[in-house]
Amino acid sequence: METKIRAAIVGSTGYGGVELIRLLEAHPKVEIAAVLSSSSAGEPLAAGYPHLTEIRTDVLEAIDPASLARKADVVFLATPAGVAAKLAPEMLEAGLDVIDISGDFRLKSPQIYEAWYKKPAADPAWLERAVYGLAEVFGEDVRDARLISNPGCYPTASLLGLVPAVQAGFIDPATIIIDAKSGVSGAGRGASLGTHYAEINENFKAYKVNQHQHIPEIEQALTRVAGHEVTVTFTTHLVPMTRGIMATMYATVAGGRTQRDFIDLYRSYYENRRFVRVRPEGALPATKEVYGSNYCDIGFAVDERTGRVTIVSVIDNLVKGAAGQAIQNLNLRMGWDEGLGLNFVPVYP
Amino acid sequence: METKIRAAIVGSTGYGGVELIRLLEAHPKVEIAAVLSSSSAGEPLAAGYPHLTEIRTDVLEAIDPASLARKADVVFLATPAGVAAKLAPEMLEAGLDVIDISGDFRLKSPQIYEAWYKKPAADPAWLERAVYGLAEVFGEDVRDARLISNPGCYPTASLLGLVPAVQAGFIDPATIIIDAKSGVSGAGRGASLGTHYAEINENFKAYKVNQHQHIPEIEQALTRVAGHEVTVTFTTHLVPMTRGIMATMYATVAGGRTQRDFIDLYRSYYENRRFVRVRPEGALPATKEVYGSNYCDIGFAVDERTGRVTIVSVIDNLVKGAAGQAIQNLNLRMGWDEGLGLNFVPVYP
Amino acid sequence: METKIRAAIVGSTGYGGVELIRLLEAHPKVEIAAVLSSSSAGEPLAAGYPHLTEIRTDVLEAIDPASLARKADVVFLATPAGVAAKLAPEMLEAGLDVIDISGDFRLKSPQIYEAWYKKPAADPAWLERAVYGLAEVFGEDVRDARLISNPGCYPTASLLGLVPAVQAGFIDPATIIIDAKSGVSGAGRGASLGTHYAEINENFKAYKVNQHQHIPEIEQALTRVAGHEVTVTFTTHLVPMTRGIMATMYATVAGGRTQRDFIDLYRSYYENRRFVRVRPEGALPATKEVYGSNYCDIGFAVDERTGRVTIVSVIDNLVKGAAGQAIQNLNLRMGWDEGLGLNFVPVYP
Amino acid sequence: METKIRAAIVGSTGYGGVELIRLLEAHPKVEIAAVLSSSSAGEPLAAGYPHLTEIRTDVLEAIDPASLARKADVVFLATPAGVAAKLAPEMLEAGLDVIDISGDFRLKSPQIYEAWYKKPAADPAWLERAVYGLAEVFGEDVRDARLISNPGCYPTASLLGLVPAVQAGFIDPATIIIDAKSGVSGAGRGASLGTHYAEINENFKAYKVNQHQHIPEIEQALTRVAGHEVTVTFTTHLVPMTRGIMATMYATVAGGRTQRDFIDLYRSYYENRRFVRVRPEGALPATKEVYGSNYCDIGFAVDERTGRVTIVSVIDNLVKGAAGQAIQNLNLRMGWDEGLGLNFVPVYP
Repeated sequence: METKIRAAIVGSTGYGGVELIRLLEAHPKVEIAAVLSSSSAGEPLAAGYPHLTEIRTDVLEAIDPASLARKADVVFLATPAGVAAKLAPEMLEAGLDVIDISGDFRLKSPQIYEAWYKKPAADPAWLERAVYGLAEVFGEDVRDARLISNPGCYPTASLLGLVPAVQAGFIDPATIIIDAKSGVSGAGRGASLGTHYAEINENFKAYKVNQHQHIPEIEQALTRVAGHEVTVTFTTHLVPMTRGIMATMYATVAGGRTQRDFIDLYRSYYENRRFVRVRPEGALPATKEVYGSNYCDIGFAVDERTGRVTIVSVIDNLVKGAAGQAIQNLNLRMGWDEGLGLNFVPVYP
Repeated sequence: METKIRAAIVGSTGYGGVELIRLLEAHPKVEIAAVLSSSSAGEPLAAGYPHLTEIRTDVLEAIDPASLARKADVVFLATPAGVAAKLAPEMLEAGLDVIDISGDFRLKSPQIYEAWYKKPAADPAWLERAVYGLAEVFGEDVRDARLISNPGCYPTASLLGLVPAVQAGFIDPATIIIDAKSGVSGAGRGASLGTHYAEINENFKAYKVNQHQHIPEIEQALTRVAGHEVTVTFTTHLVPMTRGIMATMYATVAGGRTQRDFIDLYRSYYENRRFVRVRPEGALPATKEVYGSNYCDIGFAVDERTGRVTIVSVIDNLVKGAAGQAIQNLNLRMGWDEGLGLNFVPVYP
Repeated sequence: METKIRAAIVGSTGYGGVELIRLLEAHPKVEIAAVLSSSSAGEPLAAGYPHLTEIRTDVLEAIDPASLARKADVVFLATPAGVAAKLAPEMLEAGLDVIDISGDFRLKSPQIYEAWYKKPAADPAWLERAVYGLAEVFGEDVRDARLISNPGCYPTASLLGLVPAVQAGFIDPATIIIDAKSGVSGAGRGASLGTHYAEINENFKAYKVNQHQHIPEIEQALTRVAGHEVTVTFTTHLVPMTRGIMATMYATVAGGRTQRDFIDLYRSYYENRRFVRVRPEGALPATKEVYGSNYCDIGFAVDERTGRVTIVSVIDNLVKGAAGQAIQNLNLRMGWDEGLGLNFVPVYP
Repeated sequence: METKIRAAIVGSTGYGGVELIRLLEAHPKVEIAAVLSSSSAGEPLAAGYPHLTEIRTDVLEAIDPASLARKADVVFLATPAGVAAKLAPEMLEAGLDVIDISGDFRLKSPQIYEAWYKKPAADPAWLERAVYGLAEVFGEDVRDARLISNPGCYPTASLLGLVPAVQAGFIDPATIIIDAKSGVSGAGRGASLGTHYAEINENFKAYKVNQHQHIPEIEQALTRVAGHEVTVTFTTHLVPMTRGIMATMYATVAGGRTQRDFIDLYRSYYENRRFVRVRPEGALPATKEVYGSNYCDIGFAVDERTGRVTIVSVIDNLVKGAAGQAIQNLNLRMGWDEGLGLNFVPVYP
């Protein structure tokens, strides 16, 4: 009988944490060894999440790296910005491997982190060692990494839709505009006027225009791929729905490439990567078509009138944009099939 | 290597059919051998359901019982009312086992069927042989049945919430009132003014009051359990959401039973049945807490002021109320663990 | 040129208060003299409610009865439970007339108030003088009242649907069950997990079963109409929508009355009252059909099989259930047409 | 006593038509003389729209220009594409003034109309005489016009947000990208899979990318304002909500203009036009903030990093994007205050 990897989840009371629990429950090679929470230690997990009644009987534990290292092999950090910066090094030093779902280890530059996150950056030595786990693009780096920084939800949708075209020179990187839309679960479970049902329902709003902390993350990755500095215009909107992100992206096409050329390029780039699905000519994906799953679906429209391409990329923000990709990264790190435990059919309708 | 059961699905373009596909994709002992549709034969399944892109490459087939019997062992009928009445006998005679998700074989009396469904009833001989698959109540009957009639969505939620109390004499059956609420997917995928987004959203409406065809189904089962004829008041409402049913049920309590008594009774009744979860004192379930899963969650409030109990029962109408319970019935019929392939954690939020 | 009544609104930052502003802006005989808030005094009203940009330039004022009495004639109290109990007497003694939208003056018995509201009751002398403003039933009492207690949202929908039948003996009051459903705005603007979009959307839940503070209010009014004590079973549910209440009510019919009898009775009872619309045979109202308006629409289904009537009553909880009826009460108090400033066509779709 | 203008509405069973009825009911100088429908003539208007019960008792009439001209002065055409092209000339020749809410008279070029609408264009002579009623931009043209072509919903939101900047040279017209989002009511009341609740809810999708018939309408107006040909990239998305449009627009800023410069420019351009509200620095409008009203709210973000401006413009598609602007055009045509009958406070929440 095979021994399973023992995983712990810090931040189990947030939406990212509880989605990890949903997905890991179905993983054949991982067992959930501990669920931790700084705010709710001592309470049963299912008290705050009755959908887990009789499924998980865990009591939330306080965070103690040393004792945690005795019962777990890997820890997922699903914590608010600024927490993992301190916690991850302690966990790593205690011998745990870390997959950080927060943004604390995504940006290589502490200065840029502090400018956009308005919080102290993590130790530069650990920033240096952290591996950015955009699975289909930089997945090779993940193997055997001790500290994996899981990409943000918006960057995942945006980058999977842009990287092949930027790398192949199909678009002019200086013209990239990303108009992104997200469901409300991306804001977390914290109660605020901004997440109040009556303020969101039958409403569509823009927020953090040009100021979202995912901007430098997108630019860092595009710069790496392009080989020169890339700056993007990035707008975020809140959609009256719970799950789902769409990034609608615009850029000037180089070299007269057609819709067919884009489809061929992306199909080739993502060959053998099951979680990116490139749609056929004339078809664009909708967010519900990846609901509850780890897919990222991508479609294209090229407008000969204006010489621009419109790239549409969709994900479930809590799965491919958070917990699902984190598990995919664990799979890659362990040398398992990247889809292990993740082959959910999207929930439709 | 174990041979899998080969399953076919008739009515694969409806919500019940496509949910069967989602669930069977995860079943370790079943393979989908054919997907059939009278209206869309020849078209790729994924053309109408892009969420299945690269997951299912099937082309929808026309319905031909003889040829189907050569490639499948069991057929699920997810067809509109009146279709299975004709189709099931042909399938059975061709050698296929049948699990019917429509209402055509639920009522033992052809007269009652015709009065409520306004369609010709099925052959009385087959009505006689059909087994009503309310898994946690009549599951014993299912074993080795060739024609299983899967319960309706409203009856599943209502009966699981009422049967133990009626059988134990905890409530007066003459006082039962069921106030039921359903998401819109219960109406099927057919386009109509009644399912138009702008007519449903920010709206709550009652429909088919006292006239719903699920009334005689509920009464037939309660009568069987009570040992005398039971008549209920049953109201249905449409909730602006896609999935989920709640039945809020009222009855006069007999013998001074308390909330605690009800909880104990139901926990005992559903012992070892994983898909019914009885909530603790003071807690009532919400529909989202069973979203995408095969659970039926039940809670109670007893009002000493009025001597009435309020029983709240929730399911996902497409899973426990249709495709999930159908697979649970297949599991029971085959002598497998009833939860095989069905142990999804609810999708929350 | 006619002088307008000068109205002040306390609690202008809540949904009830801001709805009063929307409606009073259209009232030909009222001007908004002051908007007050204990929590946000000094801030522009439109800062928290950008939909009022350029419409209302008021700055929120602190609450000071004496100075308020110099600039206003009547004050609407749209405050949380327990606040008006103290504030209304001060306002009245300063010379202002008061229309209280909170529940503090609805129950005549301080003991019952304290049992259900878990807060100290108002001065019994003022409780005695307060007039319960259920406009179509007790509207005569309102004329010249100095302290009008505006009914709760659930009681308005429930009582308008029950009073004629109870008064005429068409139903047995001992059998009344009220299954009520409300949109989320009824919970107010305060942020909490219970109003978080991701917790409400695609979810339907019951809450405060048998414990809602509107129960004694309904019973007090029905007792008054029936002439003997009436107790009801009352359940509340949260619907994933912003506005709207439906009360689905059940009772045993007395004397073989038919649907037609109920319609005739209610049409007669509400003759010349423009805001109650009794639907024709076979038709039941939906909440969206009164959206944004002061209507209460009522329909009936009588089931001969069970001898019960189902009465469906719908309102917009913020209009007929709060701000609209408060203005209707002001109209009645002043001897104006009760519909003055309130003749909005429902917003549909 | 003043005589009112008598208005008729063709297409009264659609969402545009029924919104005209809601708004005209509140207009002090217009009476609804007839409601017409080709598909439902003979039926009571309120049968299909129960929210109008007891408000409008009209029976829908068949369309007969000659008899209509005897009882109405002006006719609103709220008909599907292709109908007004034939109907408007007949109405005009019968002596009626026409305000066309469909797209049939918006494009001056019959060739462009036919290329984008895939239907025969209207008579060029009438296309020539039709006046494009974008009220705040071309409102002067409307006065005394016999045939007013009311702008489309997307063009209204887009053009009010772009025209001042294009005219003043604040942005480079060659760089304009419009990412537009609409609620579902924009698709009309016709039932289809694309408007099915379960397909829209919890879903966000792009549609008609680069192919929407509103593209040439936007380009025609921008070309007129710029004095040279302007081509735009225009993408439309469907938001899971009923009402509301947001256009998020991107362009390269000319001459180093700042957010403050844009605000000043737009405030100056729209001075004394009550229905355009320019938001202060740092604030962007949300669709719900104009819900049910005739406002168009506009905000700006200028990104110095990329040299681009993001302009956000919101309207209620059925009011400012259809029925409301049509009445505003009637007001302008008659020389009345443009806000007559239209001063609704937005319905919030």
